[in-house]
Amino acid sequence: MPPMTDQRHDARYQARGVSAGKAEVHAAIARQDGGLFPGAFCKIVPDELTGDPEHCLVMHADGAGTKSSLAYLAWKSGLSDRTPEQIWAGIAEDSLVMNLDDCACVGALGPFLISNTIGRNAKRIPGTVIAAIVEGYQKLSERLTALGIPCRMTGGETADVGDLVRTIIVDSTVTTRLLRDRVIDAGRMAPGDVIVGFSSTGKAAWEHEPTTGMGSNGLTSARHELLGGGYRERFPETYAPEVDGDLIYCGRYRLGDSLPGDPRFTIGSALLSPTRTYLPLIKNLLERVPRSDIHGLIHCSGGGQSKIVKFGGRKRKQGNRYVKDNLFPVPPLFAALKDATGQSWAEMYSVYNMGHRLEAVVPPSCVDACLAAARDSHIDAQVVGRVEGNDEAGNEVVVRTAHGEFKYR
Amino acid sequence: MPPMTDQRHDARYQARGVSAGKAEVHAAIARQDGGLFPGAFCKIVPDELTGDPEHCLVMHADGAGTKSSLAYLAWKSGLSDRTPEQIWAGIAEDSLVMNLDDCACVGALGPFLISNTIGRNAKRIPGTVIAAIVEGYQKLSERLTALGIPCRMTGGETADVGDLVRTIIVDSTVTTRLLRDRVIDAGRMAPGDVIVGFSSTGKAAWEHEPTTGMGSNGLTSARHELLGGGYRERFPETYAPEVDGDLIYCGRYRLGDSLPGDPRFTIGSALLSPTRTYLPLIKNLLERVPRSDIHGLIHCSGGGQSKIVKFGGRKRKQGNRYVKDNLFPVPPLFAALKDATGQSWAEMYSVYNMGHRLEAVVPPSCVDACLAAARDSHIDAQVVGRVEGNDEAGNEVVVRTAHGEFKYR
Repeated sequence: MPPMTDQRHDARYQARGVSAGKAEVHAAIARQDGGLFPGAFCKIVPDELTGDPEHCLVMHADGAGTKSSLAYLAWKSGLSDRTPEQIWAGIAEDSLVMNLDDCACVGALGPFLISNTIGRNAKRIPGTVIAAIVEGYQKLSERLTALGIPCRMTGGETADVGDLVRTIIVDSTVTTRLLRDRVIDAGRMAPGDVIVGFSSTGKAAWEHEPTTGMGSNGLTSARHELLGGGYRERFPETYAPEVDGDLIYCGRYRLGDSLPGDPRFTIGSALLSPTRTYLPLIKNLLERVPRSDIHGLIHCSGGGQSKIVKFGGRKRKQGNRYVKDNLFPVPPLFAALKDATGQSWAEMYSVYNMGHRLEAVVPPSCVDACLAAARDSHIDAQVVGRVEGNDEAGNEVVVRTAHGEFKYR
Repeated sequence: MPPMTDQRHDARYQARGVSAGKAEVHAAIARQDGGLFPGAFCKIVPDELTGDPEHCLVMHADGAGTKSSLAYLAWKSGLSDRTPEQIWAGIAEDSLVMNLDDCACVGALGPFLISNTIGRNAKRIPGTVIAAIVEGYQKLSERLTALGIPCRMTGGETADVGDLVRTIIVDSTVTTRLLRDRVIDAGRMAPGDVIVGFSSTGKAAWEHEPTTGMGSNGLTSARHELLGGGYRERFPETYAPEVDGDLIYCGRYRLGDSLPGDPRFTIGSALLSPTRTYLPLIKNLLERVPRSDIHGLIHCSGGGQSKIVKFGGRKRKQGNRYVKDNLFPVPPLFAALKDATGQSWAEMYSVYNMGHRLEAVVPPSCVDACLAAARDSHIDAQVVGRVEGNDEAGNEVVVRTAHGEFKYR
């Protein structure tokens, strides 16, 4: 956990049963080997499917997390600016993009094989919801395939497990293969590199509507801190009953309220905004820049702007210091979250992406190519920071903003 | 759903939020294509990872289902004859074997790449449980690899999703590759073939302890119908609160009671008995018999002895009639379930494997090889039935037992 996290909110996080740092889980899986490129963004294993020593494989799992609980809430209570089909297709996109964008950070551009796993409480979730989710996976796969990023749905499993699942859980697993010498190994990020951030908001060239910048992490906290007004009583199936009632839907908004600062969205549709995929931008970038010059691609999901601290600099006595002093303005959704909840800025930057969900760590000579790829994608980009040497072992992230300076280790 | 299922128990099944036939889910995914071998036991897709037209891929998802709710109950209430590590490692085995044995039914013998996904309520499930599950996956992978069936853990995702998951959900996804001309296509099962059943009980050559024959399906029903005595009040986190209380833990046993007919097991350890993998037997069988002679391998998981009805005979005007008139004696666990619950025999055979969880459908000339492979594996095997032509379109299963004759379509 970041040392400067506000203790009161850290406690609220834990009290809701979410361990942002996942230290306990990491300890549990410590025996697992790190794969071929222990410093890379995803675990990479030998290509045992073919035995070809020049190739490697990534098999990666992720899901929509508790964003599906929000989708259920919006679906049941009738959100005005999203149809049921949009709501549930969006959850499939969240599940898949969280996976694909992780894979793209090691340089994988497909073909991607995709398997989906749904666990549902059949007393709450009818077949129409399953159909909308499966259709969502299929549609996004087709859109990406048309953009030159081949995706294939290989099947899946829908289990009726009401004794385990309150509403619905939506997960996916992706398999892909690439040449070992094409792997982007974030372990190569080093002092002298600059950090280019790619905006998480706006409307990318391949998107049909603007996105608020929300990914699929931090949703337990965002949901309960923003929403209020009777959801606790009306929808007990959407939260853990073990959590103190004061922490459940203790916010000031209803789903249909306008998002402060951006009335194009309701609070509900702002939170449900499907996770943007950066894959077409990454593909464009990798066509412009030799892979050896991309020292790291970081998907700022869980951990937000502090995510990068886990990568690079591991083999030196002195770690890396990632200085970010030119971040994007805080998007309206995250500003509303800060405003509504009184969470510290330090915590906000360590949970949410706060403006960019992808960063490229490159030598200064590659910045222009990064910005050009972003322009092609209709995504704002800028140099948000740089890599320095740290005076001591281990990495550090320094986030300097108008709201203060925050450090994460 | 089988037409002869007892209506009262069918209603109990539905009332618990479990749709055994999954018709609704199948309708939801009807738009998905059937893959390269639409009649095969698993969906098989082109090998888009390499583009090699001679190979194909299987990417398959499954999980331990509500067996993990039973594991939680046993872990919390302290089962005398299983340690916590055994309980949770067993759940990993359940999740993985349900996957691998499905894949083996199309002739896949690995290497298998394995990704695991765990969703937990961190308020209920500590890191030690996650560690035991991950260790369970790792150990079974190593055991199978040592038996010539290469398995590699590629990583996974553990998500803290207490707002979605009451206790813990344990899923896995497997990717494997094989030559297209080595695929076992159950669509080839035809009149004249015989059905060889391989016992789900006893102690196989690769097992350290006897198994009761339980797989990882039917556990919602088995748990609630067998168990009683205060679990409903003490462990409300182990079931869906939407279900009528009369259907929750309405049985006569406690977890620590002896299994009638086999006092080596308690009821708890009998139900938690890890799902047997038949992979080493299948590998042995495929070394003895040309693959072209294996017309079908059926993993009798969900659907039990009626599972086979979905396969074979599709392209003919007349379907197949699978006549099973020489089944194994009903194992003690399933007898106890029948006895305790009053479920009809018709339903018992359509939910549980009732004695064999794997069957090979072969020409009569291959029976000896099947029996020899089983002997090597220390697994009982026998001809349990045969394939006849059906007088009308569609398939039919006829189960003839001392308890009556039951038909499934």
